[in-house]
Amino acid sequence: MPRRPPPPLTYRSAGVDRDHKEAILAGLGARIRSTYVKGALGSGDGFGGLFRLSGYRDPVLVSSIDGVGTKVQVAGLADRWRVVGADIVAHGANDVVSQGATPLFMLDYIATARLSTKVVSEIIEGVAAACREQGITLIGGETAEMPGVYVREGCDVVGCTVGAVERDRMITGEAIRPGDVVVGVASDGLHTNGYSLARAALLPAGKVAARLALDRTPAGLSESLGRALLRPHRPYARAVLALGRHIEIRGIAHVTGGGIPGNLVRILPARCRAVIHRNRWPVPPVFALIQERGKVADDEMFRTFNMGLGLLLVVPGEQGEPAAAHLHRLGERAWIAGAITVGPRGVHLDA
Amino acid sequence: MPRRPPPPLTYRSAGVDRDHKEAILAGLGARIRSTYVKGALGSGDGFGGLFRLSGYRDPVLVSSIDGVGTKVQVAGLADRWRVVGADIVAHGANDVVSQGATPLFMLDYIATARLSTKVVSEIIEGVAAACREQGITLIGGETAEMPGVYVREGCDVVGCTVGAVERDRMITGEAIRPGDVVVGVASDGLHTNGYSLARAALLPAGKVAARLALDRTPAGLSESLGRALLRPHRPYARAVLALGRHIEIRGIAHVTGGGIPGNLVRILPARCRAVIHRNRWPVPPVFALIQERGKVADDEMFRTFNMGLGLLLVVPGEQGEPAAAHLHRLGERAWIAGAITVGPRGVHLDA
Repeated sequence: MPRRPPPPLTYRSAGVDRDHKEAILAGLGARIRSTYVKGALGSGDGFGGLFRLSGYRDPVLVSSIDGVGTKVQVAGLADRWRVVGADIVAHGANDVVSQGATPLFMLDYIATARLSTKVVSEIIEGVAAACREQGITLIGGETAEMPGVYVREGCDVVGCTVGAVERDRMITGEAIRPGDVVVGVASDGLHTNGYSLARAALLPAGKVAARLALDRTPAGLSESLGRALLRPHRPYARAVLALGRHIEIRGIAHVTGGGIPGNLVRILPARCRAVIHRNRWPVPPVFALIQERGKVADDEMFRTFNMGLGLLLVVPGEQGEPAAAHLHRLGERAWIAGAITVGPRGVHLDA
Repeated sequence: MPRRPPPPLTYRSAGVDRDHKEAILAGLGARIRSTYVKGALGSGDGFGGLFRLSGYRDPVLVSSIDGVGTKVQVAGLADRWRVVGADIVAHGANDVVSQGATPLFMLDYIATARLSTKVVSEIIEGVAAACREQGITLIGGETAEMPGVYVREGCDVVGCTVGAVERDRMITGEAIRPGDVVVGVASDGLHTNGYSLARAALLPAGKVAARLALDRTPAGLSESLGRALLRPHRPYARAVLALGRHIEIRGIAHVTGGGIPGNLVRILPARCRAVIHRNRWPVPPVFALIQERGKVADDEMFRTFNMGLGLLLVVPGEQGEPAAAHLHRLGERAWIAGAITVGPRGVHLDA
């Protein structure tokens, strides 16, 4: 039998299915447009998303880019993807509001080995729903199919968020001084940090066993492990901007990788020492579970996880209680977690 | 012998080495700051990058997010990483300038299974050098270590670019009308599109064989295959902005995924048909090689690759020749590749 010549190559046979991608995205257009706020001129078929900036005298644009990390692995095991879409919106908006800026718009990037309609749609639905809730326009995005870069069910979800603030209203931490207090705002679980450690501590190797573990409710938790690990990153921007109308906020730290000490230190001026009292707020039980199962040292827990505080606000001493009370009225739980003292720049965790 | 208890877990033992990441990034601070232009307030230790926007009456912010796709696979085989850093800068800036905006700043995102000092440093050096050349501030970024999501040497490189344009100077394609001409600007090879197909056509399976193939100079090329495939994405923003001071540019298409037809159509108004004459510019030999080796159909080539034109400008008919001449003076090669006619909205490729 004569040997048949190899078939002609196409982009599709090489692993990239253009039409499939377009079909997925076409179904999501209305959802994406539903996030448009005043100023959003859309992207249409254009090469960039358009946002008209108005109402600022001397605007400073504040931008942040982040991924959701290996939380996607847990999302994949549970086959629940909307949450990582919501996560990336909250993460970016929290970063941007940490400098006093109003988050205006964001762009998402989703990459996998093979685009799945379900996965991409759910993630973008999660992004769009969170954007709508928080008044952020989803102005652009990209999905990429990269066989050979990602593992078979690997997926990365990245968001870039842009906000604006009047230059004389930026919050940088420079105004922090001894006598100020640190108000901690409750997190909803791990947010998007520490998942590699949490998975190592809590999930057995092997997909089937890991899925079973996620379905179970471990002693000490009041919900399944899957629910506890897949709570969305809590968005703080609206509450912070509302609070800022009543309280002088001198510094804001978004508690992400590096935990309370690693992030609070970033906003401290010279000769300001933050002393955090660890008994001032309840540490959610999921952290105790990770620590116990993984025999993780205290210090490592606090450097890796938010331990129950997703955002830290530094305010003048006499405004600490009013700030916490105001945050409660805004639907947040908040505690005075510590204070700023004179000392070498750094964060001290008090047992 | 008594069974030893499992050792306590740390973030590092779980696959994420915080200190290693910080050490890599600490070495790059000066390079990143070297990209700062007027308006860049930096990010310091802050949670967002700060850019003061000034000098605009009615600014529209134009943003784009993109990855470099599986070009990273070729970069990995050749162990040459700077190029993908440069690529992501040019890609974003070209998108932003396609709506008439000046690219102002960008943020990068680099993720791998395991952060390598060499890989991350080279990519960020490539980003920073390209930013400096193009007057774009590298205002922020993130590097992520995601074992289990990326394959062992897999790496993704993403960039988000933000520019600004006066609202009444946006270029949207709306002004395009029959009688206009399409000026094509030369690309430098594949830029960042079609690499999955190019690899399937040109590179044998297996790392050793693929590396050997990259080192060889195939018949028809005047350089090694590795050099041909790893030419950086050509940046057009400066030339386009300079040209716009002399020529009325009515529409700009950045030729990326989807090729000339897939991108030019995006800017065409209703009842405008673009006719592109394929014999008007020289198609670089690397495309002929891909087509021949992969037995790729003509149409598939034009839908997947830029085929030698990295950017298309639509200008009034009588300004076509002056535009091409001006682009030559700016260091670009450009040809009148086609014209706009009355007809159903679409792109016709003429042999």
